[in-house]
Amino acid sequence: MALPASRYWQARQSETLTIDDFTLMSETVAAPEVAQLLVCTRFLSLDPYLARAMRTGVGDAVGWSNGIVHGRIVAEVAASEAEGFAPGDLVIGVGRWQDIQTIDAAALERVPPGMDRPSLLLGVLGRSGITAWVGLHLADPRAGETLLISAASGAVGSVVGQLAKARGLNVVGIAGGPEKCAHVERRLGFPCLDHRLPDLANRIAATAPAGVDILFENVGGAVLDAALASMSQGGRIMLCGLAAHYNDERPLTLSNFKALLYRGLTLRGFVTAEHPDLFAPALAELEEGVASGAISHEETVIDGLENAPGAFLAMLAGTGLGKRLVRL
Amino acid sequence: MALPASRYWQARQSETLTIDDFTLMSETVAAPEVAQLLVCTRFLSLDPYLARAMRTGVGDAVGWSNGIVHGRIVAEVAASEAEGFAPGDLVIGVGRWQDIQTIDAAALERVPPGMDRPSLLLGVLGRSGITAWVGLHLADPRAGETLLISAASGAVGSVVGQLAKARGLNVVGIAGGPEKCAHVERRLGFPCLDHRLPDLANRIAATAPAGVDILFENVGGAVLDAALASMSQGGRIMLCGLAAHYNDERPLTLSNFKALLYRGLTLRGFVTAEHPDLFAPALAELEEGVASGAISHEETVIDGLENAPGAFLAMLAGTGLGKRLVRL
Repeated sequence: MALPASRYWQARQSETLTIDDFTLMSETVAAPEVAQLLVCTRFLSLDPYLARAMRTGVGDAVGWSNGIVHGRIVAEVAASEAEGFAPGDLVIGVGRWQDIQTIDAAALERVPPGMDRPSLLLGVLGRSGITAWVGLHLADPRAGETLLISAASGAVGSVVGQLAKARGLNVVGIAGGPEKCAHVERRLGFPCLDHRLPDLANRIAATAPAGVDILFENVGGAVLDAALASMSQGGRIMLCGLAAHYNDERPLTLSNFKALLYRGLTLRGFVTAEHPDLFAPALAELEEGVASGAISHEETVIDGLENAPGAFLAMLAGTGLGKRLVRL
Repeated sequence: MALPASRYWQARQSETLTIDDFTLMSETVAAPEVAQLLVCTRFLSLDPYLARAMRTGVGDAVGWSNGIVHGRIVAEVAASEAEGFAPGDLVIGVGRWQDIQTIDAAALERVPPGMDRPSLLLGVLGRSGITAWVGLHLADPRAGETLLISAASGAVGSVVGQLAKARGLNVVGIAGGPEKCAHVERRLGFPCLDHRLPDLANRIAATAPAGVDILFENVGGAVLDAALASMSQGGRIMLCGLAAHYNDERPLTLSNFKALLYRGLTLRGFVTAEHPDLFAPALAELEEGVASGAISHEETVIDGLENAPGAFLAMLAGTGLGKRLVRL
C-alpha cells in the first residue's frame, strides 16, 4: 500500500498562545496495524478548552502527547484493519489536527448511516449540545425561574438558552458585540446583553429584576463577576467553561465572590463525560429539536487545515457564532 | 419604675473597620412595653461576620439599624411585660451590644433551666456548633474521605474537625500561628498547618497526599487558594465563612479558581438559618458530646462592655481560640 504524505499541527508550550506557537509538520502516514484505521479528516471541532492543552502540553481529555494538537474530529475511513469499519465509513472521535492519519479504532465511533450533516455530531448533536443539556439538567431548572447564560451565541450557550426557554424559564443571554447579541435575540428568541458595553452588572439587574436563579457560566472574568451581583438567594451556578481564562495562568479576580456566601449560592463545576447515563435522553431531545426545527443551530466553518490555528485563536478572541469548525 | 442609665456601642460606616469607628453611647433605657423585656446583658458573642454589618450598616441577619451594633447575646431578665418570661430568667437571642436594654421578647428565647454554663449556648451548643454540624451534614461526608478545615481552632472549625474525626474521616486543619496549631493537634487530635508559614499549598499536598475530598472553608483569600490546589476530582467545598474578607471590599483573587472547573468541584455557600430542621439532631449530638467530654470546646472570654470592639478586632486579626465572648 502506498502511504500518503500528511500534515499536522504541533503547538509549543507557551504562557499565552499566539499564532507563532503553532507549527505545521509533515510526515508519511504509518500503515494501519491491527485494530487501526487510516482516515481522511473532514472536520475539526474548535473548542476553547483546547487552549489549555495547547499551552501546557497537558490535556487529559484529548489524548495529548508531545505537543501534537488533538481534538474531536469527523473523518472518513480510507483503509481499515479494524473489525466493524470499512472504507467510506464516517467516524467521529478524538484525533490529531492532521489531514490523513492512522488512528486506533478504539478512539472513534461510526457515524450512523444516513447522517447527511455529520458536522452536527461535533456540535448541536454532539458534545456541545449534550453539554448544554446535561448542565441544564444538573441545574434542576423550574418553569418561571430566570436563567442567565454567558457566551449565549456559542455552541453550548445557544442550546442551553433554547432548551431553558422550552422549559418555561425566563432566559437572558450575554455575548460579545452587537452582531452576536442581534443573532441571539432574533434567532434564539431571548434578550442578550453585550458584555463589551459598559455597566454590565446594572444591565443584568435591569433585565433580570427578580434576580438570576441559574447562571450557566461559560466565560469567567468580568462577565462572571457582573453576573454574581444579580444572583438570587439560593441560586445555582453551573460552571461549564472559563473561556476568558484558558489562554493564560493569571489569577481570577472577583469583586462579588462574597455573594457565594451571603446569598447561599452553589457553584458546580461539571464534567459532561462524568454523566454518560444522560447522553441518550439528551440526544433524543436534541435530535427531535433539530429535525423539527425547534432548535436553531449555527455553524461557523473555516476551510483548510492550514487555517486551523488562526481560526482557533479568532474564536478565543470572540469571532464567530455557534459551533466553530474547520473543514478539510 | 426607675429606669437605669446604660451604654451601647455604635459603629460608623467605614471601608475598613478600626477601633476609631466605634463610639460608646449612653442612654436611659426605655420602660418595657407589652411583649417587651428589660434585660441585663451577660455575654456578647463575637462573630467575624458581624464586621460586614458594622462597616456597611447592612446586617440582614442581626437586626441592624442606625449603626447600633447588634449580635447574639445571653442576658438575664430584670423586668418582664411579656408572657412566659419572669425576672431572673436567662434569655438568648439577638440584641444590642448594650449592658442594660429593653428588647422585644420575640427576639429572644428562654435558656432551659439548669443550664450552668449559658455561654455555651453562644458557642458549641449554639449557632457555632450547629453551623459546624449542619455544614458537615450538607457535605455528605463518608468515612475514609479527607476533610480540610480552615480556622480549625475557631468556634466552628474546632467542632467540624472533631465531628468529622468521629465519622471516620481523615481530618487536616489550617490555623494561624504555632499556638493555635499546637492546640488543634494536642486537644482536638488532628494535624494542623500554620498558614502564616510559607508554602501552604505544598504542605497541604504533603499532609493530604490522596487529595482533599471536602474543604470546610471559613477564611478565603490565600488559604482558600492554597486549598483549591489540593482538591480531589469531584470534591466539595462548604463555604461557611470568609473571615479574611469581612473587613474590606477588596476583590478576591484566586490563582486556582480553574480547579473548580477542571476537577468538577462543587462550592456551596450555606446559611445555617435555612436548615432549621437540622437544629434538633445537631444539638442532640453536640449536647451528648459536650456532656461526655468527647467534644472539646474552648472559650476566649474578655471582660467588660468597653472592651468589646477591641476584642472583636483582635479576633479578626487572629487572636484567641475557640469561641470568643465578651462577659459583662
